[in-house]
Amino acid sequence: KINGDRLWDSLMEMARIGPGVAGGNNRQTLTDADAEGRSLFKQWCEDAGCEMGLDTMGNMFAMRPGTDPEALPVYVGSHLDTQPTGGKYDGVLGVLGALEVIRTLNDLDVKTKHPIVVTNWTNEEGTRYAPAMLSSGVFAGVHAEDWAKARVDAEGKAFGDELKRIGWEGDEPVGARKMHAFFELHIEQGPILEAEGKDIGIVTHGQGLSWTQVTITGRDSHTGSTPMPMRKNAGLGMARVLQLVDEIAWSHAPHAVGAAGHIDVYPNSRNVIPGKVVFTVDLRSPDLAVIEDMEARLKTGAQAICDEMGLEVAFEKVGGFDPVEFDATCVGALRAAAERLGYSHRDIISGAGHDACWINQVAPTAMVMCPCVGGLSHNEAEEISKDWATAGADVLLHAVVETAGV
Amino acid sequence: KINGDRLWDSLMEMARIGPGVAGGNNRQTLTDADAEGRSLFKQWCEDAGCEMGLDTMGNMFAMRPGTDPEALPVYVGSHLDTQPTGGKYDGVLGVLGALEVIRTLNDLDVKTKHPIVVTNWTNEEGTRYAPAMLSSGVFAGVHAEDWAKARVDAEGKAFGDELKRIGWEGDEPVGARKMHAFFELHIEQGPILEAEGKDIGIVTHGQGLSWTQVTITGRDSHTGSTPMPMRKNAGLGMARVLQLVDEIAWSHAPHAVGAAGHIDVYPNSRNVIPGKVVFTVDLRSPDLAVIEDMEARLKTGAQAICDEMGLEVAFEKVGGFDPVEFDATCVGALRAAAERLGYSHRDIISGAGHDACWINQVAPTAMVMCPCVGGLSHNEAEEISKDWATAGADVLLHAVVETAGV
Ligand SMILES: NC(=O)NCCC(=O)O
Ligand SMILES: NC(=O)NCCC(=O)O
Repeated sequence: KINGDRLWDSLMEMARIGPGVAGGNNRQTLTDADAEGRSLFKQWCEDAGCEMGLDTMGNMFAMRPGTDPEALPVYVGSHLDTQPTGGKYDGVLGVLGALEVIRTLNDLDVKTKHPIVVTNWTNEEGTRYAPAMLSSGVFAGVHAEDWAKARVDAEGKAFGDELKRIGWEGDEPVGARKMHAFFELHIEQGPILEAEGKDIGIVTHGQGLSWTQVTITGRDSHTGSTPMPMRKNAGLGMARVLQLVDEIAWSHAPHAVGAAGHIDVYPNSRNVIPGKVVFTVDLRSPDLAVIEDMEARLKTGAQAICDEMGLEVAFEKVGGFDPVEFDATCVGALRAAAERLGYSHRDIISGAGHDACWINQVAPTAMVMCPCVGGLSHNEAEEISKDWATAGADVLLHAVVETAGV
Repeated sequence: KINGDRLWDSLMEMARIGPGVAGGNNRQTLTDADAEGRSLFKQWCEDAGCEMGLDTMGNMFAMRPGTDPEALPVYVGSHLDTQPTGGKYDGVLGVLGALEVIRTLNDLDVKTKHPIVVTNWTNEEGTRYAPAMLSSGVFAGVHAEDWAKARVDAEGKAFGDELKRIGWEGDEPVGARKMHAFFELHIEQGPILEAEGKDIGIVTHGQGLSWTQVTITGRDSHTGSTPMPMRKNAGLGMARVLQLVDEIAWSHAPHAVGAAGHIDVYPNSRNVIPGKVVFTVDLRSPDLAVIEDMEARLKTGAQAICDEMGLEVAFEKVGGFDPVEFDATCVGALRAAAERLGYSHRDIISGAGHDACWINQVAPTAMVMCPCVGGLSHNEAEEISKDWATAGADVLLHAVVETAGV
């Protein structure tokens, strides 16, 4: 069993870096706080006897050697970056839980056949740079590295430049590593496990995602002196499309969700009718056909709304992945571990996207989840208990050791 | 008659300061560009033999002496600040048209009984600091100076601090000046004059305005893993309220308009359901009862929408004025001037708010308007012709001279 107190202390220590405004974290990718978090993690890994690798996307790989020089490593990890108003556990539990696996093996002086590599993937959250899970996506060959490095944030700063600036661009070619397997521990970020009183979620599938950036163009003009019939109000067009998104998602509920989290209004002046609105529609379902149906209805519906209002509309896909089915053997190892340890568990579909969703394309992969309070995540008030974290890391330990062999 | 070429050249020279991105201007109040525009205006006034006064709100007063030492001055002017994506004429025509009146009187060596004072009012636009027409409002005793100076912009910078920073805070107590009359020339910012082929609009009334800042609070949570029934989506609440605003305004059209130009979404991350949205609803009508009805329906309706959705909503009035009736004598002087000069004209109600709306509370006041292309304003593409500008300044000259006496 892992050391739950040590894991918790490490979570709390990491949370001191890039504090939020309400008890959570703002340690967005490629910021100074991200660099500070990486340094602390590197120090901890080296203290645990690991050697740190760093690839050209800034992905970090801390290796604990195995006994068989031929054996491919078992990778285990998640991400250290957070939302702008994020919690202390989303991603971080998966990285520090993996580190706790290493620390426990050191304590017990257990050698594994396969090496174990603790991983921190760059820019999982996707807030500063869309799409989410950018660097695991490049690792898996889904995105071109040049394209990824040219992504810009809201201030126009490129990913590649910011990675250099914080000093965490490595030499190792991204995606060169071959994996025996990949495991990721994550908080559920949804309400199911807590509601059902389960300690552990065995993630069999991940729902797919579609991010469509919608740009509605009208004509900015005076809110007071422009008669109602002469208006081309891009803000009102956006309002109607947001309602449409909600209707579309509900029409497939509970097998789909949909909303827009990002909305920018131009010129954003109280007495100017918005001439342009840019917003990102997030549509998800475990069923690819449902995602495709929702995307199609979004485009047709938004076009009809904008045509009727004399507005222009353009669509750009800025992120997405198909629904995922995780590897049966890895899933089985996690389920067996939960059984063996006596934790209550159920199979679950991940509502969020994870680095594991991309790595699943290049290696046998699975995920384990622990509950979070009220299902709340992407909120500074995100909370878990030490017991939940401990159970999740215990299951991770057992599945990793079984897969890595002793 | 005024010198239309000189007026036009001055408009174009001022437009070089704080250029926009699409041919217009971004010379927002209390920015460095505002300071530069003020300096140029001051230089021009001094070149025309005027002495510059400056009050504690940064309002500028360039005086051309009269022949009667007892006579109160006739004030004439508008504002030099612009929208973030504003035109070259909104406000500027009224200030430089007034300067052109002085320059013409100098050319003709005409002395008036009453002094003439050309005025630039600080922060008319209301984009950086709500409410609009802030400093003419303080001058008229509508707002307390301390309150006005404590207004903050989107970055939290206070009006008073920014006024000091750009070096344009004067010593003169605001509102101490007594006026014989106030005249303001402005572009229409609406489509009526151009559509009817009129050179001149004689502004008899101004419609009233109500700015309500609406804050909707939900709960930020994950767009992927939060089930539809558990969402408290403040962005969706905002969307429904925007539709309501449109319906309310249309229910009174053509005697009312309504929209939201300013919308801020928090935390504005693609995969976070908005936990908070702050937006400003702009409702206007020439009829006070209509404004009151619209405000009441906005509050009741938004409350009902938010109650149904499990959202919190709060309202704050951040600007507003009652419908205005301008002074009959001043209006008559403008109408007589247009007649005398042979310009086609009609009476008109101002759709926008103007400094004249506040000054009307402390002095006999009226406004004259010239057309603008397509009725378009608060847009960098705002355009007028030199002939329209010339006609407007001619009418201003005659009304001012008649009122100031020779
Ligand atoms: N786990 C997580 O929150 N990932 C961010 C990507 C997503 O929006 O699902
Ligand atoms: N004239 C003008 O655009 N004033 C700004 C205040 C308003 O919104 O009416």
